[in-house]
Amino acid sequence: MQQLTKISYLNQIQSQQFDIELMSEDVGFTLDQLMELAGQSIANTIIQLNKEGKSYNKILVLCGPGNNGGDGIVSARHLKQFGLQPEIALFREVKNPFFNRLLNQCKYNLVPIHYEMQDFEKYDLLIDAILGFSFKPPLREPYDKPIYQLKTTKTPILSVDIPSGWDVEQGNTQDLFTPEYLISLTLPKLGVKSFKGRHFIGGRFIPLKLQEKYNFIVPQYQGSDTILELSNL
Amino acid sequence: MQQLTKISYLNQIQSQQFDIELMSEDVGFTLDQLMELAGQSIANTIIQLNKEGKSYNKILVLCGPGNNGGDGIVSARHLKQFGLQPEIALFREVKNPFFNRLLNQCKYNLVPIHYEMQDFEKYDLLIDAILGFSFKPPLREPYDKPIYQLKTTKTPILSVDIPSGWDVEQGNTQDLFTPEYLISLTLPKLGVKSFKGRHFIGGRFIPLKLQEKYNFIVPQYQGSDTILELSNL
Repeated sequence: MQQLTKISYLNQIQSQQFDIELMSEDVGFTLDQLMELAGQSIANTIIQLNKEGKSYNKILVLCGPGNNGGDGIVSARHLKQFGLQPEIALFREVKNPFFNRLLNQCKYNLVPIHYEMQDFEKYDLLIDAILGFSFKPPLREPYDKPIYQLKTTKTPILSVDIPSGWDVEQGNTQDLFTPEYLISLTLPKLGVKSFKGRHFIGGRFIPLKLQEKYNFIVPQYQGSDTILELSNL
Repeated sequence: MQQLTKISYLNQIQSQQFDIELMSEDVGFTLDQLMELAGQSIANTIIQLNKEGKSYNKILVLCGPGNNGGDGIVSARHLKQFGLQPEIALFREVKNPFFNRLLNQCKYNLVPIHYEMQDFEKYDLLIDAILGFSFKPPLREPYDKPIYQLKTTKTPILSVDIPSGWDVEQGNTQDLFTPEYLISLTLPKLGVKSFKGRHFIGGRFIPLKLQEKYNFIVPQYQGSDTILELSNL
């Protein structure tokens, strides 16, 4: 994977509005499509790390109740199809037909789904898909407890889009955990601009007309790659 | 990509029923999800061929009015995102909101969309996504004309799932064209069992529980690959 020197960062309102625009009738995407590609890129990041010598096999995907959690659920299905051993932690029941379909797909792939806190130390890697770019403080139950626990675990963490609980524009203002890895989706958010770990980007679906309309500097993915490493920005 | 020695083939009714089962409430997939992964795997096949030395850049995607055509439209969007120059040939207007959303996504990626016959010789590669596993003879307007023309063109052809117009179980009984390349989706159909060109498989989403339920011998994809070459079966 080639590395980049420049990319556009989004603030919170831009992130939300761009998501809405992608799913407008004009542009035509559905949440299913975008989440499928996002979740796949998360799973591909782990395969990439394993290719480089890591042995992430037993993976707990921590999922919140929104789209960030949905991306996590989709990534768990892909990881299982890739031959790894993902499990999902939901922390509470989510009564949402869209979410339940994604969970059914995981059940049909024999992915264990937990509703209670798990021992994070039992896993090779944690995927943090609890809170995404729509988060506004404060942290709320039942997600506060696992987020605080991420600060003390020795298990490496891959955060999806923004580490859960971070301010989407200001970053880690609450002295929460810092993950080893981050995968930004579509474009990175302002709050991760000074993130020092390994930073990937996924979600290769920004339509050319919208790149132009917003003058976005977009990732220069190679070949059919679904991810790109941004760490050396 | 590793090559296989054995795989399950589906007859027409199995293909249709399996598709329905994937999208049942129990299993939980939507057409959007399956088509996204199918279309992506078609595009990835072309990137793979280019990696091996081909120079397929200007590509015409011939799309029928059903799901095979939808897979083609999605592949065109991915090809454009991959930096190639795909165009879509539809042969007639399709009044279907689902289809129109997929086309809007292509329009936002500046993919030209044609409604009339095109000169096939102007392209480096043709993707045949006209008719799929639900086809029953005879060939009907306006798709008969491009299908007959595929027999005389010098431009190489990649067929999606089954060459258009072939009997899904008996193969090329009507003396139609034979493509250079084929990408079977999910599992290959009986009608392509004696296909002698380069044969890929994509659609890496068969849930583990359904693999077991039907005793399917499924493709052994590697890493995060979305395609696998079956030619040496």
